[in-house]
Amino acid sequence: MSSTPVVLSDLIAALGGDLLGGSDIRIARIAPLDEADAHSISFLANPRYQSQLTTTAAACVIVSPAMAEAAAARGAAIVTPDPYLYFARLTQWWAARTRPAVQAGVHASAVVSPDAMLGEGVEVGPLAVIEAGAVIGAGARIGAHCVIERNARVGEGTRLAPRVVLGHGCRIGARGIVHSGVVIGADGFGFAPSKQGFVKIEQLGHVVIGDDVEIGANTCVDRGALADTVIEDGVKLDNLIQIAHNVRIGRNTAMAGCGAIAGSTTIGANCTIGGAANIIGHLTIVDGVHITACTLVTRDIAQPGAYSGAYPFEENSSWQKNAATLRQLHTLRERVRALEKK
Amino acid sequence: MSSTPVVLSDLIAALGGDLLGGSDIRIARIAPLDEADAHSISFLANPRYQSQLTTTAAACVIVSPAMAEAAAARGAAIVTPDPYLYFARLTQWWAARTRPAVQAGVHASAVVSPDAMLGEGVEVGPLAVIEAGAVIGAGARIGAHCVIERNARVGEGTRLAPRVVLGHGCRIGARGIVHSGVVIGADGFGFAPSKQGFVKIEQLGHVVIGDDVEIGANTCVDRGALADTVIEDGVKLDNLIQIAHNVRIGRNTAMAGCGAIAGSTTIGANCTIGGAANIIGHLTIVDGVHITACTLVTRDIAQPGAYSGAYPFEENSSWQKNAATLRQLHTLRERVRALEKK
Amino acid sequence: MSSTPVVLSDLIAALGGDLLGGSDIRIARIAPLDEADAHSISFLANPRYQSQLTTTAAACVIVSPAMAEAAAARGAAIVTPDPYLYFARLTQWWAARTRPAVQAGVHASAVVSPDAMLGEGVEVGPLAVIEAGAVIGAGARIGAHCVIERNARVGEGTRLAPRVVLGHGCRIGARGIVHSGVVIGADGFGFAPSKQGFVKIEQLGHVVIGDDVEIGANTCVDRGALADTVIEDGVKLDNLIQIAHNVRIGRNTAMAGCGAIAGSTTIGANCTIGGAANIIGHLTIVDGVHITACTLVTRDIAQPGAYSGAYPFEENSSWQKNAATLRQLHTLRERVRALEKK
Repeated sequence: MSSTPVVLSDLIAALGGDLLGGSDIRIARIAPLDEADAHSISFLANPRYQSQLTTTAAACVIVSPAMAEAAAARGAAIVTPDPYLYFARLTQWWAARTRPAVQAGVHASAVVSPDAMLGEGVEVGPLAVIEAGAVIGAGARIGAHCVIERNARVGEGTRLAPRVVLGHGCRIGARGIVHSGVVIGADGFGFAPSKQGFVKIEQLGHVVIGDDVEIGANTCVDRGALADTVIEDGVKLDNLIQIAHNVRIGRNTAMAGCGAIAGSTTIGANCTIGGAANIIGHLTIVDGVHITACTLVTRDIAQPGAYSGAYPFEENSSWQKNAATLRQLHTLRERVRALEKK
Repeated sequence: MSSTPVVLSDLIAALGGDLLGGSDIRIARIAPLDEADAHSISFLANPRYQSQLTTTAAACVIVSPAMAEAAAARGAAIVTPDPYLYFARLTQWWAARTRPAVQAGVHASAVVSPDAMLGEGVEVGPLAVIEAGAVIGAGARIGAHCVIERNARVGEGTRLAPRVVLGHGCRIGARGIVHSGVVIGADGFGFAPSKQGFVKIEQLGHVVIGDDVEIGANTCVDRGALADTVIEDGVKLDNLIQIAHNVRIGRNTAMAGCGAIAGSTTIGANCTIGGAANIIGHLTIVDGVHITACTLVTRDIAQPGAYSGAYPFEENSSWQKNAATLRQLHTLRERVRALEKK
Repeated sequence: MSSTPVVLSDLIAALGGDLLGGSDIRIARIAPLDEADAHSISFLANPRYQSQLTTTAAACVIVSPAMAEAAAARGAAIVTPDPYLYFARLTQWWAARTRPAVQAGVHASAVVSPDAMLGEGVEVGPLAVIEAGAVIGAGARIGAHCVIERNARVGEGTRLAPRVVLGHGCRIGARGIVHSGVVIGADGFGFAPSKQGFVKIEQLGHVVIGDDVEIGANTCVDRGALADTVIEDGVKLDNLIQIAHNVRIGRNTAMAGCGAIAGSTTIGANCTIGGAANIIGHLTIVDGVHITACTLVTRDIAQPGAYSGAYPFEENSSWQKNAATLRQLHTLRERVRALEKK
C-alpha cells in the first residue's frame, strides 16, 4: 500500500523509538524487507531474516537493539525493543491518516427506533436498522445495513463493518471490531427428539462479548440456551468461525478461520486455535493451550501445550495405500503381538 | 435468562404434567440443575445427573415418573414421561411470552413489488425486498434486509431472521425458521472445462424446502443444476453449512455446523451428521445413519449405524511421530508380512 | 427445470453442432438421460453412461461423433466434439432466455454517492450502497443490498447478487459473478502479541480480482496486510471459502466449498482444490496440483499431481479401535524393528 509520504521525524514523534539516521527521509509506504523500495519503511522482527538487511532497498528498517549496528550501517533505522509490535502500531498510525474519521450522525436512510439510545458522536451508516431499547456507546460506528436488534448494546468506540447482525439482548464491549456478515445471537442448535420429529428448544440466553474483541467476516456466535455465550476481553476470531451456544472463550485467546467450538465448551485464556480446528461440546480447555490446524479436540485438555490431530498429506497414490492399511491398523497390532509371543 | 415471574399453576395449565407441590410458587427463570436458584425451574432428563437432585437449589424440577419420589422429597416437581421434551415445550411457551408478536404489515422502508402476494398477517421488516411473483404465506415474518427474489415462496408462519436471501423460484414450507445470513438458491458450482478455461453451467433448478425446517446462520443451500435441491420436512441445519446442488436430505435429519454435502448426494431420513463432517458428491446414504464430527464420507452407506473418520488428537510431539510413521504404514504392513513368513 | 419450448433448429442456429433428425422437435427442458422425458434434451458426456442411450426417453441427445450412430438410431441427436461443453453453452443460452435482462438505472431506494462513477447500462438494485470514488463498469449489475465501498471497482458486465460487500479500494474485473453474502476486503487476521494482549496490525492492502471470476455464497476474501490479495483471471471459488490476506491464486484454478487458504500462500494456475481442503500459510503450490477433499496441505508442493490426506471413514466401532491404535503407531514401528533385529 502507499499513501501521502511522511517524514521519519513525524513518525518518531507519534510512535517513539530511537532513530538512527536521516529524520527528514520521506516514507511513502510500509513494505516487507524483500519488497521494499527506496521510499519504504520495513521491519526486521525475526532474526531468521537478518540476511535481508544487506539486500533490502528500504529507506528505513525497524530493528531491535541487537540489530541496531547492522541496520544503521546500511541506512536509516528505528531501534525499539519489539520491532513487530512497533510495526503493528505503525500500521495503526498509518491507517488512521487515511481512514475516514467516524462521522457523527445518523444517515437519512437508516431506520432507528426513537427508543434506541445513541451515545455522543455515534455514526450510523446508510440503511442500518437499530431497534427499540438498543444502546450504542459514544463514538461507535454502525456500518451500512447493520441490524442492531432490540435491547442489544454496542460499547464505546466499537466499529461494526457493513452488514453485521447483533441479535436482541446481545452485547459487545468497547473498542471492538466486527467485520461484514457476522451474525451474533442467532439461535443455538437445540432440539428435543420426539415421535413427531425434533421439537425446538427456544434459545433464551444472549451473547456477551467483552472489550477489544475482533470478529472476522461471516463468523457466527450463537446465543445461549438458558445462560449466555461469553467471549471475554481481547479475544480475536477470524472469518467463518462457528461459536455454538453457551461456549465461553477466555481472555486474549485467538482462533484462526473456519473452525468451530461446539456447545457449552469452555476455552481458557491465551489459547491459540489453528484454522479449521474443531472442538466438540461440553469440554474444558485450560489456559495456554495451542491447537494446530484441522485438529478435532474430543476430550478435555488439562495441561497447557500444543495439541494436534491432522492427517498427514502425501501424494494421492501413497495416501490410498496408507489409508487402506489404516483401516486394518488394529489387526496389524494384533499380528505384531502374535509375532512377539513366538 | 430471566423474565417476568410466572406461577407454576399457570405453567401446568399451559403445558400439562403432574405437579407435586406448591402450585403458587413463582418462577423467574429456567436453569440447569447446577445453576438454578430458588426462583428457577429446572429439569432432570439424563439419569446420570440424578445426584444433582439433592444439591440443586431449583424451586421446581421437571422429572420422569421414576424420579418423582426423589424430586418431590426436596421441593416442587413436575412429573412427565419425557422431561427433556417437556423442557423444550417450556422454552417455547417462555419465549412466546416475551418475543414480540408478528406485527402484520409492511414496513414503510421495505421495497415490495406490487406483483408479490402477501398472505394475511404477514410482517415485512424494514428494508426488506420482495420481488414480483413472490408469495408469502399467512402469518410469515420477513425480517429486515431479507431479499425474496422473483417467484420465490415462503410458507405459512415461517420466520426469516434479518438478512436472508431466498433466490428466484425457491420455496420454503410452513413453520420454518431461517437465521440471518442464510443464502438459499445461489448457483451450484458447475463448470465445463475448455481450452479457454471453465465455462459456466447455468444452474436452472431451484431449492425446495419442506415444512418445519430450521436453517442456521450463514448456511448456504445451492439451487439445482437441472432438477431441484430438496430439503424434506423437519430437517434441521446448523450454522455455516454448505448444501450443494441437487442434494436431497430426508425427513427429520439433523446436521451440526460447518459441514458440507457435495453435489447430487442423497441423505436418508432420521440421520444425524456431526459438526464439520463432509460428504462427497453422488453418494446415497440410507435412513438412520449417524456420522460423527469431522468425518469425510467417501462411499455410499447402505446400513444404518454410526460411522466415523476423524484423526485422534494428541500432544503435538506424539502426533508428529505418529503422523510421520503413518506415511509408512503400508510399508510397515509389508514388513510384518515378511516377518510372518519367516 | 422447464420453460417455454424451443424447436431444435433454433437451438442449432444459436449453438451450432450437427443435428441428426427432426429439426422441428420441440424441447421444453434440459434433463439428465435418466430423468429425461419426451420433451427433454439430454447429453452423453461420459462413455460410462452409454447404456442409458437405449433407455432414455429424451427427444434429443447431445453426443460426440463416436456416439452419433447409436444416438441417431433412437431419435434426434446433436453431434459435437465436446458434448459436456455444448451442454454448458446450452444452459447459458437457456438461462439467457428467461433471466431478466440487466435493467439500466439506479433503484430509487439505493444510496449512491455523487462521487461514484457508473458506466453505461449499469443496474443498481434496491437499497444498494455505492460510496464515493467507486467505479462500476458498463453493463454491470449491482444487486439489492450490496455495499461497494469507497474507491472500489467493479468490471464491465460483472454481476453481483444481492448482498455482496466489496471493501474500500478492492477491485473485481469483467464478466465476474459474485454470489450473495460474499465479503471481499475484510481485514486480514494480523496481530502483534504484547503484554497487554494482541495489538492489531491494520490491513493496508486491497483485494485484486481478475476477469471471469466466480465467487460462491458467503465466501470471504481478505484484504492484504501491506501488499494485495490476488485472484487471477478465470478462478472459480465455491461457497463458504476463506481466502486469507496476501494469498495469490493462479489462473483458472477452481476450489470447492468450505476450504481455506491461509495467509501469504501462493497457488498456481489450473489447480483444483477439493471441498473442505485447507492449505496453511506461506506455502507455494505449483501449477496443475489437485488437492482432494478434506486434505490439509502443510508443505510446499513443487510437483504437479494429486495429493490427499483425509482419514478413511468406517463403522464407528472399527474406527475406535484403529484410531486408538494410531496413537501408538510409532511404538508399533519400534516393535516391528525389534522383531526384525531378532
